[in-house]
Amino acid sequence: MKLEDVIKNIKPLDQEAMEICKKRWNTLGKPLYSLGRLEEMVTQMAGIYRHPMARPKKKAVIVMAGDNGVVSEGVTQTGQEVTKIVTENMTKKNASICILSSVSGADVYPVDVGIVTDVENPKVINKKVRYGTANMAKGPAMTREEAIKAIEAGIDVVGELVEKGYDLFATGEMGIGNTTTSSAVCAVMLEESVEKVTGKGAGLSSEGLLHKIQVIKDSIVLNQPDKNDPIDVLAKVGGLDIAGLVGVYIGGAYYGKAVFIDGFISSVAALLATKLVPVSKDYIFPSHCSNEPAGKMVLDALDMEPYILANMCLGEGTGAVMGFTVCDYAMTAYHEIPSFEETKFGTYEPLN
Amino acid sequence: MKLEDVIKNIKPLDQEAMEICKKRWNTLGKPLYSLGRLEEMVTQMAGIYRHPMARPKKKAVIVMAGDNGVVSEGVTQTGQEVTKIVTENMTKKNASICILSSVSGADVYPVDVGIVTDVENPKVINKKVRYGTANMAKGPAMTREEAIKAIEAGIDVVGELVEKGYDLFATGEMGIGNTTTSSAVCAVMLEESVEKVTGKGAGLSSEGLLHKIQVIKDSIVLNQPDKNDPIDVLAKVGGLDIAGLVGVYIGGAYYGKAVFIDGFISSVAALLATKLVPVSKDYIFPSHCSNEPAGKMVLDALDMEPYILANMCLGEGTGAVMGFTVCDYAMTAYHEIPSFEETKFGTYEPLN
Repeated sequence: MKLEDVIKNIKPLDQEAMEICKKRWNTLGKPLYSLGRLEEMVTQMAGIYRHPMARPKKKAVIVMAGDNGVVSEGVTQTGQEVTKIVTENMTKKNASICILSSVSGADVYPVDVGIVTDVENPKVINKKVRYGTANMAKGPAMTREEAIKAIEAGIDVVGELVEKGYDLFATGEMGIGNTTTSSAVCAVMLEESVEKVTGKGAGLSSEGLLHKIQVIKDSIVLNQPDKNDPIDVLAKVGGLDIAGLVGVYIGGAYYGKAVFIDGFISSVAALLATKLVPVSKDYIFPSHCSNEPAGKMVLDALDMEPYILANMCLGEGTGAVMGFTVCDYAMTAYHEIPSFEETKFGTYEPLN
Repeated sequence: MKLEDVIKNIKPLDQEAMEICKKRWNTLGKPLYSLGRLEEMVTQMAGIYRHPMARPKKKAVIVMAGDNGVVSEGVTQTGQEVTKIVTENMTKKNASICILSSVSGADVYPVDVGIVTDVENPKVINKKVRYGTANMAKGPAMTREEAIKAIEAGIDVVGELVEKGYDLFATGEMGIGNTTTSSAVCAVMLEESVEKVTGKGAGLSSEGLLHKIQVIKDSIVLNQPDKNDPIDVLAKVGGLDIAGLVGVYIGGAYYGKAVFIDGFISSVAALLATKLVPVSKDYIFPSHCSNEPAGKMVLDALDMEPYILANMCLGEGTGAVMGFTVCDYAMTAYHEIPSFEETKFGTYEPLN
């Protein structure tokens, strides 16, 4: 799908379905509004799925995997080869995301949107845009066209999984160096200092952190990304994995499915998606709040509050799948709590 | 079991099991500490269950049900008869807690610790201490002996369920008027103004709230509960349900099982339990943060941060069961994520 066509065809939420859903909540045998954000989630999903009794169930975690040229600056503890290894582990069900998603009953779909080497594994969805990005400390990470192509890859993966019956999505990523690119994007988009939005990722030393901050600063100064043009930011200091995730959010909105954010990288992608296509925000749900220093800042910028507080920062979608479970609780409550009539103890009327 | 014997026999956590567990986390194929509070939960449970590979699984929600004489002051929207109706609904699997606990795979055990009428339902565990409390606005809600008896009832229920193989507990309550008693206990224990810790419960009007606040103030002035004597506070301005929950927490500690807090009432009981038996705190886990005004204040007083933010205030244990699911994620991660050796991408060493 072409990005411009997709953007034109995203609908606002179905307000009528939401109104009916809200009213139905008030007939259920429990104090009014006492399920708080679970009620709000179901109501929003009624708008997304355009039906007051929608009950999405078939869950997929889309893990965008790509390499980042900036790794050659020594901003990470491990090398680029780890991106491919972990991505392939996801097909053998022994990556962390496979273990955690088993609790939520979700299937994991790793996508090669730009791993630096060939991946000869049919279980990894091949959407490779290029063999890793260029080093953003020396020039733009990729061209504008490549960024758009990666976004379209994300949209297409959602479409293909919708074809297979999936109706609930979570985002995950795998890409050595992607906290570096995410912090760069975050600093630009939030107009925050690089120091404030940069953390140690997967185990950098304090010295390593200082170097990482400098590399990000230099990359921003060199490339001059335009904050008002999310694709420009993505192309210059982002990554293929982030771009792919932007596509997953936009694809979710286009296909009328809810998408859960994971941690920092995934939140940064959500921020870009909502800047590019504001209406897509209504299709996106938070899950946890990443322990990366800017995790909460990006959620705040999205005006979203996490459902889960667990100080996690593993990535891969490991927090997003916990959002699936929150959704299961919400949907089960909505569809299975009997009405006041059935429970035989009268109604709780709002008196004020 | 006699409360005094139980208190004497509660052990501190097994530090050795915790140390081994912590070390094992660092061998798993993921960035160090990247599962944050999930890692901490499993480690604490290793201490509770006295084994580094403990994996509690069989879950029970203990719902303490009791009536509150203060309801005759008009502090609630519904009458005392609702306590019994909802408690019995819990045996028919159509109360809200039954619906939500089905998602977590937990069984629900309602306990009559003081419903105002007889409950002729063998599926409701009968631990009745008295037929509802007295009206605290006219005198103490119950005697000190009755409060202790209700605590012992909670301990015994844990013991009986441990016998049945349950090893993970959540607390729930059902008792019309119990946000009134909980706010009274909270105001005394936290030395906070009644206005600040009192909310509308299950749907009071703004006028009704002012009346509720006045009744609580009058009850505290009349009864003069001693902040430094948790049983005195419980007996004078508490409730049988709260006392039963205090027993569940203490029982969890005595039998070496973890117990999840639910919302406001359940948190107030946890606060009393930890004041009465400080070591019991190590066996208690938060779940969500109640939307009642003092929900966060009581968790702060317990020095606990919720795992779930959902603005819920339904009670019955509906938030606590979501804590079970957090535990499932944590345990699944710990027991099933392969080691660095197995994942073949080397280790993440902390360099700083």
